Amino acid sequence: MGKGALALLVHGGTENWSPQRWKARFGEVCGDRPVVLLPDPALDPAEVHYAAVWKPKPGELAAFKNLRVIFNLGAGVDALMADRSLPDVPLVRVAVDDLTDRMTEYVVLHVLMHHRQEPYLRESQRVRRWAPKYQWAASALTVGIMGLGTLGAASAHALGALGFRVVGWSRSEKQVVGIRCFHGSDGFDAFLRETNILVCLLPLTPETRHILNRGVFTKLNRTSPLGAPVVINAGRGGLQNEADILRALDDGTLGAASLDVYETEPLPGDSPFWSHPKVVLTPHNAADTDADEISKYVARQIARFEAGEALENVVDRTRGY
Amino acid sequence: MGKGALALLVHGGTENWSPQRWKARFGEVCGDRPVVLLPDPALDPAEVHYAAVWKPKPGELAAFKNLRVIFNLGAGVDALMADRSLPDVPLVRVAVDDLTDRMTEYVVLHVLMHHRQEPYLRESQRVRRWAPKYQWAASALTVGIMGLGTLGAASAHALGALGFRVVGWSRSEKQVVGIRCFHGSDGFDAFLRETNILVCLLPLTPETRHILNRGVFTKLNRTSPLGAPVVINAGRGGLQNEADILRALDDGTLGAASLDVYETEPLPGDSPFWSHPKVVLTPHNAADTDADEISKYVARQIARFEAGEALENVVDRTRGY
Repeated sequence: MGKGALALLVHGGTENWSPQRWKARFGEVCGDRPVVLLPDPALDPAEVHYAAVWKPKPGELAAFKNLRVIFNLGAGVDALMADRSLPDVPLVRVAVDDLTDRMTEYVVLHVLMHHRQEPYLRESQRVRRWAPKYQWAASALTVGIMGLGTLGAASAHALGALGFRVVGWSRSEKQVVGIRCFHGSDGFDAFLRETNILVCLLPLTPETRHILNRGVFTKLNRTSPLGAPVVINAGRGGLQNEADILRALDDGTLGAASLDVYETEPLPGDSPFWSHPKVVLTPHNAADTDADEISKYVARQIARFEAGEALENVVDRTRGY
Repeated sequence: MGKGALALLVHGGTENWSPQRWKARFGEVCGDRPVVLLPDPALDPAEVHYAAVWKPKPGELAAFKNLRVIFNLGAGVDALMADRSLPDVPLVRVAVDDLTDRMTEYVVLHVLMHHRQEPYLRESQRVRRWAPKYQWAASALTVGIMGLGTLGAASAHALGALGFRVVGWSRSEKQVVGIRCFHGSDGFDAFLRETNILVCLLPLTPETRHILNRGVFTKLNRTSPLGAPVVINAGRGGLQNEADILRALDDGTLGAASLDVYETEPLPGDSPFWSHPKVVLTPHNAADTDADEISKYVARQIARFEAGEALENVVDRTRGY
């Protein structure tokens, strides 16, 4: 009998994430291990030892009785956590530098766009208006980062290097070199009181659902040259209360929002976000990781596992991330 | 007799750069030295020992026979160099971290905007189209920086930290830690052949006038995932041949341009740049430096000068910068 098969179960994503592309990439890095694209009626489910998945439907993984490890092809595992029939085997998140680098690019770009008054400058260009406005220095703003894992720490460092004041918040206590960190419910208000631009990179769990809500927006700091604070969400759509965001933008509680994720994706064509003048939206592509990097990562983890070494970045199912 | 007066001669700029604001700032940092805003009919020109200027008209400084130092309130001295009657005293450029930091913000923002396909994403939002496109990593692009003084070196480091490949070019040989540097006419083509995004931070001199021209654009590298190369000019308008830029954008030689400076400023209302879909324009505000920082810098230089120490950042009038 040969090596246990790696089954691929991929829904959604861009052309770079097509199931066929994934199969080709995994085929290149898996040696003589069979790589199977699901669904495959000819496949004996008992032959599947590993599954690499992106947004599987609840129940899709329950058929594989000999499953040993599940690999999630991204950082967020909230969709998997919602599957009550998920086999009780280690669930590994992707944590590759490539993903971290892309998220950092997104966060730096969107913080700079708001800081440097890009929406005003684009509108000025549209109406042929030469009207430079006062531009404050980066050091006049505090960026508050929610979520201090690999992604949050990298963004914090990149923003600090550009001169922004940076503070961080996480549910459990964390230390990030050079960044003033708050944690837990006790530290949340103090964190918000300093924050002019709020960047959300939290995992989505029952505790963090709708954490971006009106109560939070009203506590943000309004005394910077930016005026009304800005929210940037590149975590998950479920972290945001979308009705609250719209109301806060409309009544001036928030000055602007950059959104990469939404409660329903693709964002429905009739969402008010599309045409809102204070919203900068992107189609969940902040950290679209390279299939090459991810497939190599999964192959490396399988090799570790079969050599009896510990898997890396295993999800804590109690915490949910 | 008291201290020699500091005369202020300021044309143009935003509200942050108003002559009255400059006078207030200099008044705060100059102790008992008289600070005079020009023109002032009551002023005896012989009392003026120092002049702090921004875009003075040719001949305006010739009247001050006891002038000891001229301070230019920005990095670029091309306007002053064009004044044939400029008194033959040391001319000092502003070189404050604040200015460097702001230019770095501008360069990082505009490189990221093109790299992350912002023009496409804004158009997608406008037409309510959820259509993420393949997004390459920063490491897939080479940013070429022309001008490796304080500004160019800072931008090179910031872009390198974000994962871009960075090369640099300067007229005379320079070394920037961690950056592959080319120089002179001999190194120019090799530099251009690698460059996907060209960032121009050169001083404007007779040698660099219209250095951004069609011949240069055709030599840029077109083999990155970006396709057609991008030009970003945050130096001086005189560095660019504007007709060549328009033609290169229209025939696909260039994919896009970010322009902060123009041959005529303010940019005339009938310039085709305003409405060009491939142009991201800003009103010469890339590095609008804080008056507080600059006035403190000038006061510090005057103190050095009067203590017999060497002035810093003195312009070499032969080179023109």
